[in-house]
Amino acid sequence: MNLPSKVMVREVGPRDGLQLEQKILSTEDKIYFLSQLSNAGLKAVEATSFVNPRAVPQHHDAEAVVRGAKLADDKVRISALIANLTGLERALAADVREVNVAVSASELHNLKNVNMTVEQSLGQLRAICRHAENKISIRASISMVFGCPYQGETELSMIMRILEEYLTNGITDIALCDTAGFANPRQVFNLVEKLRAHYPLARFALHMHDTRGMGLTNIFAGLQAGIDSFESSLGGLGGCPFIPGASGNVPTEDMVFMFDEMGISTGINFGNLVLLGRWLEGKLAKRLPGRMLHENVCRFREE
Amino acid sequence: MNLPSKVMVREVGPRDGLQLEQKILSTEDKIYFLSQLSNAGLKAVEATSFVNPRAVPQHHDAEAVVRGAKLADDKVRISALIANLTGLERALAADVREVNVAVSASELHNLKNVNMTVEQSLGQLRAICRHAENKISIRASISMVFGCPYQGETELSMIMRILEEYLTNGITDIALCDTAGFANPRQVFNLVEKLRAHYPLARFALHMHDTRGMGLTNIFAGLQAGIDSFESSLGGLGGCPFIPGASGNVPTEDMVFMFDEMGISTGINFGNLVLLGRWLEGKLAKRLPGRMLHENVCRFREE
Repeated sequence: MNLPSKVMVREVGPRDGLQLEQKILSTEDKIYFLSQLSNAGLKAVEATSFVNPRAVPQHHDAEAVVRGAKLADDKVRISALIANLTGLERALAADVREVNVAVSASELHNLKNVNMTVEQSLGQLRAICRHAENKISIRASISMVFGCPYQGETELSMIMRILEEYLTNGITDIALCDTAGFANPRQVFNLVEKLRAHYPLARFALHMHDTRGMGLTNIFAGLQAGIDSFESSLGGLGGCPFIPGASGNVPTEDMVFMFDEMGISTGINFGNLVLLGRWLEGKLAKRLPGRMLHENVCRFREE
Repeated sequence: MNLPSKVMVREVGPRDGLQLEQKILSTEDKIYFLSQLSNAGLKAVEATSFVNPRAVPQHHDAEAVVRGAKLADDKVRISALIANLTGLERALAADVREVNVAVSASELHNLKNVNMTVEQSLGQLRAICRHAENKISIRASISMVFGCPYQGETELSMIMRILEEYLTNGITDIALCDTAGFANPRQVFNLVEKLRAHYPLARFALHMHDTRGMGLTNIFAGLQAGIDSFESSLGGLGGCPFIPGASGNVPTEDMVFMFDEMGISTGINFGNLVLLGRWLEGKLAKRLPGRMLHENVCRFREE
């Protein structure tokens, strides 16, 4: 079984997770969250989004969060989601090193999410890339790669269309996102293997949700297909508030634990993640779906 | 990715799951449970145990359950756990087709569980096999194959010692059990591959627990190592009553769903399993850990 010896974990909880939480954390708590992620060994964090605060109230304080996080710690690579040129301007002004853009491979989901067709989104992406020049690093996500609740199976041709536009515009860090948690491990292995063979210049990450309990299994399948970069949320943050234990991103601590157990290096301290996850549960006043936050971990190897 | 086209699922919830539940189901409910498992397409079920009812109060009615289940349905292969010759006598008298015996690969766990050394348990196994002759089919489990909370890592030599005793006594259906839920997928793949190569006559099944959330991932690793037989419990029955969502067997419906999604045939109707799992939650008056019992399943293929 050929698995990578080390992997990159990119924490997206502060952005992708928190935006779905009802409770708005204070700016100070968000900055503390980011600094403790860095202390736990995370090297890359999606910290916030520069989008309309009426659409995403949780991120009303994006500038202050970025400023505070940078003051607290300059080791971690902070990025922020943007949706258009206004977001890019804000990100440039806030001096973040990296922005993330996203287009959905499901036409219906893209329309529901940003009220644009995929082609319109790609046109906007080109404008963002032109405007960004070399002033900021850009990474990109493709949503609904493994299936969509609105549309059913996702067409490979659409995934490739978006991928090629990303690559043409110089974006090589690309996350394949199972936004609805519809993937199965055979599908992940086969699709990732195909895409890696077709696009050797792309550096793919996987971003899996645990809706149907297959999140870790899909990550294991991705590892076998050569993926060594994964996005996740501490505690599985971002789970649907009406379904306990369901629907969020794969919990970072559960994923890191699995990597640890397999001897795959992450540079992350599992114990620190668990403490931080419990702190987060306190701040949000709710139980998070992460398994290892609550499990009595009987590890019998040295810590 | 080479996976089997079909797999055997053996439901152990009525035995392994229920024995840990505080609430004692009525004999009628147990018989209904078994008949509905058969209706859902299960071909093999561990129905009860012929052990001392003071040790396992839930199975006080083993004879009545077996009798009722056989009257209700003769399609399903009913088996029962036994721990000694007295159990074998009861199983023979009750006319079950198959008994299951278990020995732990952890000396300390075996002592705690049955107050015998592994060698004493193997001596008793030989007595059971001699006494059984060809009157009843025997299958066997090895507990704590992938690690033990009392003892740490399990020695391969102990697993092989037990395996060889099983094979010498004519037992070829052997379940490798991750009793504590300590396995990781790389370990599962490597160990199963090794054991299958060493013991080509053994027909291995995997019996995984989901303590650390890696149950399905370990099953996926087992599939890749050539395993096509799996034991699980409806709803993840048998989870520790003090840790919500944790520690039980892998939920049968979650496992069947994963197989379905990968196009691996089980002969089992997923929808019927979910209905039965919800019935079981009602009878036990508790939420079971199974993910798909509670998930809003947006499947976009034909049912």
